[in-house]
Amino acid sequence: MTNKTWRVGVAGLGTVGGGLLQFLAERPGFAPAGDLAVVTAVSARSKSRPRTVDISNLVWFDDPVALAASPEIDIFVELVGGSDGPAKAAVETALKAGKPVVTANKALIAEHGAELAALAEATNTPLLFEAAVMGGVPAVKMMREALVGDDIISVAGILNGTCNFILSEMEKTGRSFADVLREAQGLGYAEADPTMDVGGFDAGHKVSILAALAFGCAPNFAAAEIEGISEVDLLDIKLAKDLGYRIKLIAGAAKSEDGVAVKVHPSLVPLDHPLAQAGGALNALFIEGKRIGRIFLQGPGAGAGPTAAAVAADIADVMTKAVRPVFQAPAGDLKPFVSIDPSKAVGKAYLRVMVQDQPGVIAAISETLAECGVSIDSFLQKPVEGAGGVPIVLVTHATPESNLLDAISRIEKLQTVLERPRLLRVARI
Amino acid sequence: MTNKTWRVGVAGLGTVGGGLLQFLAERPGFAPAGDLAVVTAVSARSKSRPRTVDISNLVWFDDPVALAASPEIDIFVELVGGSDGPAKAAVETALKAGKPVVTANKALIAEHGAELAALAEATNTPLLFEAAVMGGVPAVKMMREALVGDDIISVAGILNGTCNFILSEMEKTGRSFADVLREAQGLGYAEADPTMDVGGFDAGHKVSILAALAFGCAPNFAAAEIEGISEVDLLDIKLAKDLGYRIKLIAGAAKSEDGVAVKVHPSLVPLDHPLAQAGGALNALFIEGKRIGRIFLQGPGAGAGPTAAAVAADIADVMTKAVRPVFQAPAGDLKPFVSIDPSKAVGKAYLRVMVQDQPGVIAAISETLAECGVSIDSFLQKPVEGAGGVPIVLVTHATPESNLLDAISRIEKLQTVLERPRLLRVARI
Repeated sequence: MTNKTWRVGVAGLGTVGGGLLQFLAERPGFAPAGDLAVVTAVSARSKSRPRTVDISNLVWFDDPVALAASPEIDIFVELVGGSDGPAKAAVETALKAGKPVVTANKALIAEHGAELAALAEATNTPLLFEAAVMGGVPAVKMMREALVGDDIISVAGILNGTCNFILSEMEKTGRSFADVLREAQGLGYAEADPTMDVGGFDAGHKVSILAALAFGCAPNFAAAEIEGISEVDLLDIKLAKDLGYRIKLIAGAAKSEDGVAVKVHPSLVPLDHPLAQAGGALNALFIEGKRIGRIFLQGPGAGAGPTAAAVAADIADVMTKAVRPVFQAPAGDLKPFVSIDPSKAVGKAYLRVMVQDQPGVIAAISETLAECGVSIDSFLQKPVEGAGGVPIVLVTHATPESNLLDAISRIEKLQTVLERPRLLRVARI
Repeated sequence: MTNKTWRVGVAGLGTVGGGLLQFLAERPGFAPAGDLAVVTAVSARSKSRPRTVDISNLVWFDDPVALAASPEIDIFVELVGGSDGPAKAAVETALKAGKPVVTANKALIAEHGAELAALAEATNTPLLFEAAVMGGVPAVKMMREALVGDDIISVAGILNGTCNFILSEMEKTGRSFADVLREAQGLGYAEADPTMDVGGFDAGHKVSILAALAFGCAPNFAAAEIEGISEVDLLDIKLAKDLGYRIKLIAGAAKSEDGVAVKVHPSLVPLDHPLAQAGGALNALFIEGKRIGRIFLQGPGAGAGPTAAAVAADIADVMTKAVRPVFQAPAGDLKPFVSIDPSKAVGKAYLRVMVQDQPGVIAAISETLAECGVSIDSFLQKPVEGAGGVPIVLVTHATPESNLLDAISRIEKLQTVLERPRLLRVARI
C-alpha cells in the first residue's frame, strides 16, 4: 500500500476539534488503507485562546473560508457549526475546489444537504458527516452503505443526549425541568443557550438527515414537526410512569404511500422497551427495514472522544477514494420531500385533564371523547398534592390526530375543566 | 454516474442465495452509486431441485470453482459454506483472477482469513463478508470502517440465534435442552446436525472474525476457547435466575497486554442487562472502544432477508471500487494472534455443588473455597424436587480461573459432594 500523506485542515477547535488534533497527532497512520492523515492548518475564533493541544506548528487562518480554499490542504474538516454563515461558505468553497469535506455540522446538512450534495457530486468530491448524527455511533454509514440492500420503512429513537439526560434526571430526582437544566448547564451537558437541544431542533436536524439517508429524499428540516421538552411537566412524568410509560424525546421518520413524516416529540415509551431503558446522555435508534427487520443501535451521542472518532473514520473513508452519493441516492435522483399532513397522523395519545373534583366530570370527558371518535385504552384518576385540581389521565387507542385535537378543544370548554388538556404522543415503536 | 452492469455469479442457492437472486431480480439498480448488479450465472448442488426463483435463464455451473473462474462474471458470491473444500477453492480461484468476492462463509474467514486476505490484497481485490457475522446487522462494516478512529478494547455478545432461541425457550417453557432442540429443528431454527450451532463453533467463528477486525490480528479460530450449550441444565437456568442472572451463550474477545482472549461460553448475565433481554433468535453485540465508549448493536442474526441484504450491501461496496484491507489492518501487518493462557483469566463464576443434606457440608465447601483463595459474592441453598441431592449454588467474586479449577477438583473429593461441581462463567460485560 502507498503511504501518501493527506494534509488535513481543521476549522473549529472546540472539544471535537481538539480531540481530533490530539488523535491525528498520536495516530496519523490510523487508517487501515495505509495512508497518513496529518493536520497542517487550522482556523478558529481566537488564535491565542489557551488550548489543550499545541497549534503553534500549524498554519493559522483567521477565516475558515480561506482555509477551505488553501491549496495547502487535501481534506477540509468543518467543525465551526451553524447552518449558514462561514460554515456553509467554507464547505461550498472546499467542494467547488474538489476538496473532500468532513463535517459534524447537522444543521448545515439538514438544512442545505441537497444543495451541498449536488455540489459535491458535480465535482465528484466526498462530503461526509458521520459525526453529525449519534456521535460515535455510525448511524450515517449504516444508513448510507450497510442498509442499501434493504428498503427502510422507519427510524425512531433518542438523538439528543442533553434532553435524555434532563428527562432521566427529572424522573430520578423529582426535580423540575428548569432545575435540572441548570444542573446540566453546570455539568457542560447543556449549552448556555439550550434552545437547539431542549427545543428539539438538534434532534430534528439529525432525524431529517436520517430520513434523507433512509428514504432517498432530500433532507427537509423545515418540514419536520418539532416539539421540545421545555414544557414537559414532572407531573406527567410521574403519571405516565403509573400507566407503565417513560417520557422520552423521540425523533422519528416514517415513509408511507402519502409521503414522509419527520417528527420530534416528547413521547411515552413502554417502560420495558429498550428506548425507555436508554438513560442518561445515551443515544439510541431503531431502524426498521423490509428485509432486515428491526436493528437497534445504542451508544454515546456526543463528547470529544466519540465525535472525534467519527470524524476520523470519515477521513479514513476519504482516503479509500470510494465514490458514493452523499445521501442514499445521487443528488439528482433525490425524491422531493413530500410531508404528510400531521392532522392525518394516527396514533395512541396521552391526555392529562385537570378538573375540579365534582360528580359527572369523568362522564362529561368520556362522552366528549366518544363524540370525537376517541376510544380509551387506559385511564387513571389520582389526587396529586400541590397540583391545582385533580388530574385525570388517559391513554387512547390509535386515533387520528384531528379527532384528538377536536376532543381537546371541546374538553377545554367543559365547565369543570381547569386548563387546556395536556397532549403527549405514545411513541410508535 | 455511469451505468455499468456488474455480472454476478452466485455459488450456493439455499435460502440466502434464493433471497439474493430475488432481490437483484427486483432491484438490479439498488446500489446508490448507480451501477447495475445482475446475476448471470449460478452453481449449486442440484440443478433440477425445485426452487422459488427461476434460474432457467442463468448460466449453470456444476462446479463452483469453474463459476469462480468464468470470465463471464465480474463478482463472485460464495454461499456454499464450509471452511475448506469447494468454497475455499472457489474463493481462491476468484481472488487469484482479481475477481471481487462476497461471501457469507464465517468458517472460511475465521479459519483461513489471513491467508485469503493476503491473496486478496496481493491482487488488490475486495474480499467482503458482512453476512458472515450477525446477518443483517452490519457489525463487520462497523468494525472495519466506522470504528477505525478508535482503539477497540473488547467485544462481547450473542452471535448465534439458534442457541439464543433454545436457551430462551428452555427458560420460558421449563423444558430440557434436548426437547427444545428438537422443536428448533422442526421450526428450521436448527440444522439436522446442530453441532456447529449448539457446540458454540458458529459463535466461535463469528467472534474470531470480530477479534481480527477489532484488534488487527490474524483471525485464529483454533485459539478460541469454546463451550457450547448442550450441557446447560434447566436446573442451572432456574437457580441462576434466583440469583438475578440469565444464562446466555456469550461470545467475547478482549485485548490486554498479554494478548487476545477469544471465548464462547454459556454465561450468566444480570437480568437487567441488554444482553439478558435479547431473547428469541436475536443477535446482540457490545463493542467497547477507548474513545467511543460502549456501542450496542442488536438485530436479526440470520434468515434469508437479512443475510441476503448484507450480501447485497457488500456487492454495492464492491461497485464503489473502494480499496480497503480485508481486516482492520493490511494482511502483511496483521499481528500474530497471541492467545492468553485461559487459566490466567480472572472473572466471577457460578458454581453448583450437589450435596447430601448433612451438617457441615456448607462449612466444608466454603473452607475449601477459602483455601483456594476463592471468595463468595452470593450464595443460595435451595431444595429442588427431582434433583439428586441438594444443590448449593454460589457466585464468586472475580477469581483467577486456576484457583477455581483447583477448588472444583478439591470440592469434588469431599465426602458429601455427589458429583463434580458445575462451573459457569459470569459474563464480563
